[in-house]
Amino acid sequence: MDTMANETYYVSYFIDELYQNGLTDVVITPGSRSTPLSMLFTDHPSIEEWIHFDERSAAFFALGIAKTTQRPVALVCTSGTAAANYYPAIVEAYYSRVPLLVLTADRPNELRDNGAPQAIDQIKMYGDYVKHYHDMALPSADEQLLQYSRRQASRAYTIANAARKGPVHYNFPFRDPLTPDLERPNLWGESESPYIASIGGYEGITQEDVRQVVGQVQELSRGLIVCGELTSDDEARAVLSLARQWQIPVLADVLSRLRQIGDEDPLVITTYDALLKHESFQHKMAPDFVIRFGSMPVSKPYFQWMAKVQPSVHFVVDEQAGYRDHSNVPSTMIYSCIELLIESLTAYSIDQDQAWVELWQSIDQQAKHQLKELASDSLTEGSVAHVLSQSVNDQQVIFVGSSMPIRDMDTFFLPEAKQVTVLANRGANGIDGVVSSALGAAAAGEDVTLLIGDLSFLHDYTTLLMAKKHNLRLRIVVINNNGGGIFNFLPQYQYDRHFEAVFGTPFDAPIGDMVKTLGMTYHFVESNEALGTILQQPISDLEVAEVQTERETNYAWHQQLKSMIASILKGDSHVRDSRK
Amino acid sequence: MDTMANETYYVSYFIDELYQNGLTDVVITPGSRSTPLSMLFTDHPSIEEWIHFDERSAAFFALGIAKTTQRPVALVCTSGTAAANYYPAIVEAYYSRVPLLVLTADRPNELRDNGAPQAIDQIKMYGDYVKHYHDMALPSADEQLLQYSRRQASRAYTIANAARKGPVHYNFPFRDPLTPDLERPNLWGESESPYIASIGGYEGITQEDVRQVVGQVQELSRGLIVCGELTSDDEARAVLSLARQWQIPVLADVLSRLRQIGDEDPLVITTYDALLKHESFQHKMAPDFVIRFGSMPVSKPYFQWMAKVQPSVHFVVDEQAGYRDHSNVPSTMIYSCIELLIESLTAYSIDQDQAWVELWQSIDQQAKHQLKELASDSLTEGSVAHVLSQSVNDQQVIFVGSSMPIRDMDTFFLPEAKQVTVLANRGANGIDGVVSSALGAAAAGEDVTLLIGDLSFLHDYTTLLMAKKHNLRLRIVVINNNGGGIFNFLPQYQYDRHFEAVFGTPFDAPIGDMVKTLGMTYHFVESNEALGTILQQPISDLEVAEVQTERETNYAWHQQLKSMIASILKGDSHVRDSRK
Repeated sequence: MDTMANETYYVSYFIDELYQNGLTDVVITPGSRSTPLSMLFTDHPSIEEWIHFDERSAAFFALGIAKTTQRPVALVCTSGTAAANYYPAIVEAYYSRVPLLVLTADRPNELRDNGAPQAIDQIKMYGDYVKHYHDMALPSADEQLLQYSRRQASRAYTIANAARKGPVHYNFPFRDPLTPDLERPNLWGESESPYIASIGGYEGITQEDVRQVVGQVQELSRGLIVCGELTSDDEARAVLSLARQWQIPVLADVLSRLRQIGDEDPLVITTYDALLKHESFQHKMAPDFVIRFGSMPVSKPYFQWMAKVQPSVHFVVDEQAGYRDHSNVPSTMIYSCIELLIESLTAYSIDQDQAWVELWQSIDQQAKHQLKELASDSLTEGSVAHVLSQSVNDQQVIFVGSSMPIRDMDTFFLPEAKQVTVLANRGANGIDGVVSSALGAAAAGEDVTLLIGDLSFLHDYTTLLMAKKHNLRLRIVVINNNGGGIFNFLPQYQYDRHFEAVFGTPFDAPIGDMVKTLGMTYHFVESNEALGTILQQPISDLEVAEVQTERETNYAWHQQLKSMIASILKGDSHVRDSRK
Repeated sequence: MDTMANETYYVSYFIDELYQNGLTDVVITPGSRSTPLSMLFTDHPSIEEWIHFDERSAAFFALGIAKTTQRPVALVCTSGTAAANYYPAIVEAYYSRVPLLVLTADRPNELRDNGAPQAIDQIKMYGDYVKHYHDMALPSADEQLLQYSRRQASRAYTIANAARKGPVHYNFPFRDPLTPDLERPNLWGESESPYIASIGGYEGITQEDVRQVVGQVQELSRGLIVCGELTSDDEARAVLSLARQWQIPVLADVLSRLRQIGDEDPLVITTYDALLKHESFQHKMAPDFVIRFGSMPVSKPYFQWMAKVQPSVHFVVDEQAGYRDHSNVPSTMIYSCIELLIESLTAYSIDQDQAWVELWQSIDQQAKHQLKELASDSLTEGSVAHVLSQSVNDQQVIFVGSSMPIRDMDTFFLPEAKQVTVLANRGANGIDGVVSSALGAAAAGEDVTLLIGDLSFLHDYTTLLMAKKHNLRLRIVVINNNGGGIFNFLPQYQYDRHFEAVFGTPFDAPIGDMVKTLGMTYHFVESNEALGTILQQPISDLEVAEVQTERETNYAWHQQLKSMIASILKGDSHVRDSRK
């Protein structure tokens, strides 16, 4: 008969992962759409299944088990009002803080809301009475999706079980055929530990947790610390102290504060974005373990590298039940205050592959040198970021726009830069409201220089009227390439038709006139030196410095940068053999 | 380069369909995730695109066009806060009743809520400020999904444009690669009219609308009326009058009221569910046009037949902007009061293939005869439905449970049955709350007999305490096959392992004792005659008649029924040639 075939693993891995996290019980009510879940839960050799005929009672029954054990219990029902019957117990679980994993089967998108029988709108159907809602992708045998399924199961369990405990809702669309293929090999037990484990939480971490972390890295010789956006200098200092104690490199995002705090320590690696665009380097420098702090770094090559090399030990340090990692790497989340964690970790020493550490440092130094050379040449988007990092006065805030500016800053804001704070809106990476946010930083009492692209500036131009009214001071550097420069770096650029109309989008905005019309100071910048001079002045008013660039030229310039890095890397092809 | 290849059609058909519906303008803001939409809208030869750099302004700009033309305008943006920028204009459009098609690009499920850049939660993000929300399936080149894409585009346009006009939100997940392949042939203009067109609406239908409907069917010789659940006898009488005026068969669902109202008119076909299980019959009796009233019929074979034969003219009559058709047939929705529409239609005559009409009637008569024969034999689930239809007193309500009871009633409630009203919860087809709903019908003053399965009865058993307290009268016929009988008819049944535990789910409930414990009258039924005698008595209290059956035996019995129908159909293989 027709079965789900290899898609069966998508569901069995989800269930297996719940088991690896500690699930012992599932309460199932019969139904057809839920067949993949109910048959596979029943097939699992160790999870106990309870079959009930009534979903309302089933949910309260599950609540009873979970209330007693204080561990999550899974609930499985079919689509339709079956799911609505769970509502009373979910409300009770929410208020009494009982962990429940509510798994509802659903029709796929194309069978929703068209009169198909037993198809009701299940999206977010329990509102705020669940701690978390996720609409699962359709089952797939694709390796990425199988990992995703494990990851989501771990998250479901972890979120339900974290303080304050409560119900979570995962909605599973299934297309026909619904019957899983129980004859496939290794449906169970492929994973011996949770795909996403977690340590710590609301209560903090114990010394036993710390020993566990150290135990996992102690036998490995190529460790990396990676640090995305941090929100305080104290956190950055703590991360740096760990790198120094363990003598391992730290990849420092432009928003990590480590480039400034690090005081040119060669352990602070800043050019990895440029380096990791090269496959040879990706392969050569694969780490044995990674400990990541802060948000995901800006660097897309870093993300691709992680997804590819999948380090066997991957710790992500985050606040309570946060989850910021889209690289699909099996991970252990450490939920802890960064400073407290590191205070405990630095009581231990570990032994590292010195040659490898030194190679990171030496390549980083060479790449930095090249970057500076290149950026000191003519006026380009990259050089603006470099001049900015060299010329603004200490203690300022540099606020950075999304899209190209943040990427250029990530490349050219190097450790010998000024002691400034770099901020950006990286929660959702919008190009909207950036001028207003920078004005907010100014209103908070900081001297602020904003680096922004022309589209983002136009988006939020009229907010300057408000700034004038409140006498806010802000220096804005607008990179005007008359449109959307980032698209030249995306696959769409290879496709000629409609590119300039839809992505390039030149609007020929007379930025100078627009600025002067509002009575603001305006500079048209023609060289790196001129820009440096402007940036060194105190910020006394609202002013705009416009740098006009060309998108095509900028793209070519970045290609040139890529070749230069390639030459550096050619000189170091011996590294594999240097491994201890 | 890597492109969306054939998945490109999924998006181009959506856009083409908007155009077929009347779309003339789209307002686009640049972005990467929205590439399939923005490039294809731009590629469309006739839709005018307006490129803006600011989503907030773009949405108000679109609102301006739509406010002036009073026709929907499309909006396209990328994922992230771009979509949030639409919110002010959407709120304005909602209150000022301006039609907008808000098309937001989104990341696929597996990249949501894991810190991936520019991935925010876009599901239902505009709350109740849109008239309609739909989460689109991922692009696919599958024929069913391509039809779904057209159907959704038509619905989006229709809903936005129907009184009261307003914004609708369609969220499009896209996986990489994002670039559509503009070199594919026939991206545009494959469809010459909307996939789902609509006639009428809040204002009612005009005589011109009626002429259009008649014009479309006048040249076709094999027409069918199909009627699902109706909520008044007047509607049923109107549908019957159309069948008689045009002399075309009407497939009458058990909830259509036509079987009772029809007074044994041979045009009222009732055995189509049994007949359409046979491929030869499906093929032979494919109609040229269908006019459907009421909800989708209970019959699954009917649904499968429509999906397969795709009649070239398919009208669905429904109330204002309703949509109940999951068969994916290109359709014209007629939004009208049923009686008014039919009053206009019956002013016309059309010419039909008499031999074909007579064949429907003759096969239906033979099948009815066979069904009755079979049902008069021993006590089975099917015979219970038949005895019920023959023995309950006129003017009663028969309330029917979901799952097998409604299907058995659809097969065995034949036109010579009593003048009763058949009701069921078919909005979401739950097995929950059925006893309570039947009690509600009793509380509304009707004499009610409820036909229900054991699981559904157990689900809602305790509601009987409330019935006692309020002295409600209800007769309940419980078909007790000790579990879920419908699963024997689904593919899961072919798969031995876990079947009985997960789907059969026998609970061995002592129904007799449970009923007697509450002080209610209980009958254990052992023959069709005994059941008939019980049903003929007036309903004076709460009483339960239990019929015990076997799931396996019942399945075998249905297989026997299928063979009998097959024999009838073998005798009529000459029909193709009889066509005029």
